[in-house]
Amino acid sequence: MTEIDPTTRRRIVDALREQRIETPSWGYGNSGTRFRVFPQPGVPRDPYEKVADAATVHRFTGVTPTVALHIPWDRVDDYAALAGYAAEQGIALGTINANVFQDDDYKLGSVTNPDPAVRRKAIGHLVECIDIMDATGSRDLKLWFSDGTNYPGQDSVRERQDRLADALRQTYDRLTGEQRLLLEYKLFEPAFYMTDVPDWGTAYAHCLDLGERARVVIDTGHHAPGTNIEFIVAFLLRAGKLGGFDFNSRFYADDDLMVGSADPFQLFRIMHEIVLSDALGPRHGVAFMLDQCHNIEPKVQAVIRSVLNVQEATAKALLVDVAALTAAQRSGDVLEANAVLMDAYNTDVRPLLREVRAEMGLDPDPVAAYKRSGHLERVSAERVGGDQAGWGA
Amino acid sequence: MTEIDPTTRRRIVDALREQRIETPSWGYGNSGTRFRVFPQPGVPRDPYEKVADAATVHRFTGVTPTVALHIPWDRVDDYAALAGYAAEQGIALGTINANVFQDDDYKLGSVTNPDPAVRRKAIGHLVECIDIMDATGSRDLKLWFSDGTNYPGQDSVRERQDRLADALRQTYDRLTGEQRLLLEYKLFEPAFYMTDVPDWGTAYAHCLDLGERARVVIDTGHHAPGTNIEFIVAFLLRAGKLGGFDFNSRFYADDDLMVGSADPFQLFRIMHEIVLSDALGPRHGVAFMLDQCHNIEPKVQAVIRSVLNVQEATAKALLVDVAALTAAQRSGDVLEANAVLMDAYNTDVRPLLREVRAEMGLDPDPVAAYKRSGHLERVSAERVGGDQAGWGA
Amino acid sequence: MTEIDPTTRRRIVDALREQRIETPSWGYGNSGTRFRVFPQPGVPRDPYEKVADAATVHRFTGVTPTVALHIPWDRVDDYAALAGYAAEQGIALGTINANVFQDDDYKLGSVTNPDPAVRRKAIGHLVECIDIMDATGSRDLKLWFSDGTNYPGQDSVRERQDRLADALRQTYDRLTGEQRLLLEYKLFEPAFYMTDVPDWGTAYAHCLDLGERARVVIDTGHHAPGTNIEFIVAFLLRAGKLGGFDFNSRFYADDDLMVGSADPFQLFRIMHEIVLSDALGPRHGVAFMLDQCHNIEPKVQAVIRSVLNVQEATAKALLVDVAALTAAQRSGDVLEANAVLMDAYNTDVRPLLREVRAEMGLDPDPVAAYKRSGHLERVSAERVGGDQAGWGA
Amino acid sequence: MTEIDPTTRRRIVDALREQRIETPSWGYGNSGTRFRVFPQPGVPRDPYEKVADAATVHRFTGVTPTVALHIPWDRVDDYAALAGYAAEQGIALGTINANVFQDDDYKLGSVTNPDPAVRRKAIGHLVECIDIMDATGSRDLKLWFSDGTNYPGQDSVRERQDRLADALRQTYDRLTGEQRLLLEYKLFEPAFYMTDVPDWGTAYAHCLDLGERARVVIDTGHHAPGTNIEFIVAFLLRAGKLGGFDFNSRFYADDDLMVGSADPFQLFRIMHEIVLSDALGPRHGVAFMLDQCHNIEPKVQAVIRSVLNVQEATAKALLVDVAALTAAQRSGDVLEANAVLMDAYNTDVRPLLREVRAEMGLDPDPVAAYKRSGHLERVSAERVGGDQAGWGA
Repeated sequence: MTEIDPTTRRRIVDALREQRIETPSWGYGNSGTRFRVFPQPGVPRDPYEKVADAATVHRFTGVTPTVALHIPWDRVDDYAALAGYAAEQGIALGTINANVFQDDDYKLGSVTNPDPAVRRKAIGHLVECIDIMDATGSRDLKLWFSDGTNYPGQDSVRERQDRLADALRQTYDRLTGEQRLLLEYKLFEPAFYMTDVPDWGTAYAHCLDLGERARVVIDTGHHAPGTNIEFIVAFLLRAGKLGGFDFNSRFYADDDLMVGSADPFQLFRIMHEIVLSDALGPRHGVAFMLDQCHNIEPKVQAVIRSVLNVQEATAKALLVDVAALTAAQRSGDVLEANAVLMDAYNTDVRPLLREVRAEMGLDPDPVAAYKRSGHLERVSAERVGGDQAGWGA
Repeated sequence: MTEIDPTTRRRIVDALREQRIETPSWGYGNSGTRFRVFPQPGVPRDPYEKVADAATVHRFTGVTPTVALHIPWDRVDDYAALAGYAAEQGIALGTINANVFQDDDYKLGSVTNPDPAVRRKAIGHLVECIDIMDATGSRDLKLWFSDGTNYPGQDSVRERQDRLADALRQTYDRLTGEQRLLLEYKLFEPAFYMTDVPDWGTAYAHCLDLGERARVVIDTGHHAPGTNIEFIVAFLLRAGKLGGFDFNSRFYADDDLMVGSADPFQLFRIMHEIVLSDALGPRHGVAFMLDQCHNIEPKVQAVIRSVLNVQEATAKALLVDVAALTAAQRSGDVLEANAVLMDAYNTDVRPLLREVRAEMGLDPDPVAAYKRSGHLERVSAERVGGDQAGWGA
Repeated sequence: MTEIDPTTRRRIVDALREQRIETPSWGYGNSGTRFRVFPQPGVPRDPYEKVADAATVHRFTGVTPTVALHIPWDRVDDYAALAGYAAEQGIALGTINANVFQDDDYKLGSVTNPDPAVRRKAIGHLVECIDIMDATGSRDLKLWFSDGTNYPGQDSVRERQDRLADALRQTYDRLTGEQRLLLEYKLFEPAFYMTDVPDWGTAYAHCLDLGERARVVIDTGHHAPGTNIEFIVAFLLRAGKLGGFDFNSRFYADDDLMVGSADPFQLFRIMHEIVLSDALGPRHGVAFMLDQCHNIEPKVQAVIRSVLNVQEATAKALLVDVAALTAAQRSGDVLEANAVLMDAYNTDVRPLLREVRAEMGLDPDPVAAYKRSGHLERVSAERVGGDQAGWGA
Repeated sequence: MTEIDPTTRRRIVDALREQRIETPSWGYGNSGTRFRVFPQPGVPRDPYEKVADAATVHRFTGVTPTVALHIPWDRVDDYAALAGYAAEQGIALGTINANVFQDDDYKLGSVTNPDPAVRRKAIGHLVECIDIMDATGSRDLKLWFSDGTNYPGQDSVRERQDRLADALRQTYDRLTGEQRLLLEYKLFEPAFYMTDVPDWGTAYAHCLDLGERARVVIDTGHHAPGTNIEFIVAFLLRAGKLGGFDFNSRFYADDDLMVGSADPFQLFRIMHEIVLSDALGPRHGVAFMLDQCHNIEPKVQAVIRSVLNVQEATAKALLVDVAALTAAQRSGDVLEANAVLMDAYNTDVRPLLREVRAEMGLDPDPVAAYKRSGHLERVSAERVGGDQAGWGA
């Protein structure tokens, strides 16, 4: 079983203290399936209340200092004011997520729509998002397109790629300074026959064409069954093209469950590749974000739990004895190499994380502390009237 | 290539004339994904207008004389009046579909909910559906439960089975006369970790326990990747437990596309098993129903097209030279047996179906005739104001 | 984090001491893929040497007192002699596995072959296996059929079911005393279009027809992607029809990797259902077997590791605070119920298992002890000449 | 229904006459699964007899003038002599397929093996294959690597990519003149946890790095469930990086069934993308190859049938009314666009292909003609004694 010396322990603790995970504003709002969106008490009614919930998560976990916005769901008149409110709450505004899938115009696509007027409108929205980034100081524009087709023959695969390339180019060229374009891929849903950016290869090819500040985002729920996600992580890190993660869990499709709840071993393997490539820290440009739907469970508590799950996977990844692993790999000792990895995975890292939190001045058990805090009861009482935030589908 | 003698041809034509396909009231309403429901012009605003659309489909196809209802989406004060209206339009009310997935109470399940009060409410709805069947004269109660759990540990798998068995028993015992209970299964969605009736084996086991008038319904979109659906068809037919189909198409999950649009060869293989077991006619108790979502395409035209797709698969299945097939199978001639099947599949049956329609006094090209009829333009003009029907998610 | 009182701890330790896992004779022989079987040094050359390897595993783990045989791979002239040798080595002969997939006659199937002569031959082999059970005192006949078809139309799905039912009936009726028939299912491979027993529903239906001593075996690698295996476990336990497991791991298809190496959380969830139904002990009739292929790793060590993986999953399952779990489930507290389960899963149970082994007079680290023992080096030196055992494909 | 004018018909007939499909030498040899290789009468015993079988297929189909070789399975002392023999038979030697997966050294990989000596040996084999290409005049070196790992941690994902890149570079740099390197990808098998070239994105990225004469090969059976293969075809054509196809069919994994037998509609959609990009003819550099295993069916007849299946899909693709399709796509008429595509698919093209064959001086029904020819009976009588060709696993 893993025995670690004080130096190593210190290194691990420091890495865990410095870890940063961004939470999504929409994760605090209502969500559901096409069958039903079940409302929950205390759900935010506007971007300010979402920011407040994100700040609450940061208060208990200490590692979620930013909140991602979704435009237009989080559109406000004054982004500086929203950023100021966030700062008061102890966090900052993070990644800007474009949304070009909810206008009637987008029924047959946004940037890949056969109608050039619709494409112009969609590109206009992407540019608007960069305007917002200028106002919020956000670094990253995250693009996920619902674009695709439902039936064979519905539209030209190649022409849609041409349109996509054009839209990405116009958007990329609008970026300034340190701003980045993160391109997400997804196998299916809501398009059912063909998605215009269905896999990492497509996203990678477009990012290569765009330039250095274009990178691929991996949503852990967006793959075909059997896909080895950590391979993609390692490949993109090797190529310098991994922009970040949208973390969540899935058993079947894009279930958007709490990260680490469906296959915690997979999450560990992903974080192991991150650690091996020394890409955990913020300076490496990999954005660790949650993208989840808490359809039936209380949202703030679920986000806290998700953050803990990422922390635990990270701690285990940091525990891997890389020297022993490499030695076993080099010598072709299959069972020993696997055993070194599993030894770290099988370690209970919760005591270590409690120490990290104690060092950070946090309650060692953030879920219990949150429940004791009465936050859910308070916002349930306060947030009555108005329209609860949701996807607005 | 298939050469058929006049007697065989007559038998095939007669079978195609007698074929019956039920269309779903909800297929005429708006639908979409969790990301967006795109409204369409001319969509019905109440059950009467849905019935009118179903009758329109029957007018052009001649083989869809019934429409399935979904309660509470199609709840009316006077079912006799609705049935009378349907009769005026030339069709009848068909299968009653229960819906126990849209009340806030059902967030954690309906008939398998841990709360006995919720279970009682859900069972009450199932009984109400049988009351409606008594009023409409419908034979079949079709049950699909969204029940399940999203997270490991969330609820007891076994206890939920006990609750399910109890609810099914209470419902089954309420049936009278020729009424039947059709139980549908589904791998996932909206539950993401565990579905209480995930596969045909579970549905079959419960139907066996219930009794003779309980049968399994196969929704062609509700299986894991790689599932051989025609095997299930053949198995259930052999066991006398196939109650019917919810036809639709899928590439990935429960996409609910037009039947025959994603894998027409699979649809043919399914209909081949039906024909082999002589289960095409209504007297065999297999209900052929559509269950589709026309999210981006015009709905009535899409339903007509779907009906044609089923007819074409059926015609091909009827063309299979069973004597030659059996001879090849018995002699272990793999390539010849496959060739006999493919010969029928590769035949263009559209000329034959045009003849069938001409015999029936229909336009040989129902889609073209529908488009010429100006129906969509008319209802688009008439059906303004009010609330378009939809899933009400 | 899980705190357990001494009484509970004692109960857990006792359960772990009493746990029984059967190892497969063929797991000690060579295996591979259709691309290549890589031979390994020290591989057994006959059933006696396989039994010796199984006994070696038992010597280090203490929980694998039986070895499953595969006929004809393990055919010997004198089964009493083989049983006596096993007893000398400290183990016993266990489940008899029939093999009707390697004769030229079986190209188009064994018990479902269109040729009645081939079917008779196959049934003859099944009966021979029961003769062997009479000689070895084995309780269980485990049946896995490679039967199926590669092409649509190749053979009649229904007639193959009739033939299967007939063969199972003849075999079942030959059983005496406590003997049981365990029927395994598999989605695909080596048949690629249709498998005659593709899923648990098919196996269950046949076992129901056969009678009380017919039960379903779950091979954890034999399912479609996305299948919830623990649901099947719970369902079959509820129905009294779970006969046992063939444990192994898979990422994609029937990979036959070491159990617990691909998705240890799934293995834990399976064992959780076992524990919940109090089906861990031998008196409940669930046979826990390994069925693995160690294509590239040393075999005895891999089997030992696999046994440890099952023990760890079992220990975690025994740690679940069922009272707290049930309370959370009943109250609909999704996050708490999940947390109770995860708390057990996240516990490092290796210290507990070391204590169990110490109590049993075993080395607390069986893998290290095995490596120190020099067993592999010894058999590699001894077992030269002759033909290494393998699948003989 | 599709009505075509004489000019269009002529264009289609000419395209079908000029179509070229390469058959694989190993498709004429024995093959099977890990469970069993069933031998067949008349199977070739050496490369010459395989070439003879390939020539037989060409004699009946007229569109398969080359045969792909697999080294070392088809290693001969004198490749010029083999090429001469092929010429006498009316065909030529085609693509050279490297095989670095059957030596004991390759247990843990070939070009990605942790041992540099093994990597050198593997690269040596790749270079040897180019030597053979120099001798045979073959244009394409097709590389498929079985390399990968079975267990998490077994080896470094990134380092294996480095080794792969190095081996590909050394091989690519050895090419001369018009020679090309075609890189194939595969999701899994025989590696079960991680494959070093698992998807088109990985192959594409490496080919981009290598240079113009490196292209991606699509084996239609090498994808995860739900993958839209025609999207990949269209994407690679757009990027100028589609090198060719290994055609076959699958229901589940890499089943290697006859192309067009599992999902003929998919094959049509693939050929539709080919036709849309005008990539059918040989001058576009897309190699159309079969890569199949006829485990239970007669091999030459199965290859002929496969060729017909590709021809039928091609004919249907050529029938698509592209002008009507484009018009419907541009106007956003989902149902009409789909209908245009389906109209071509639903057409029975077998009469057209019979005319094509008659024009070419061939029997219009190649399967029937082959069966009448007595070829199988003749080679079954002649080819006795010696070792039948096979994979040699």
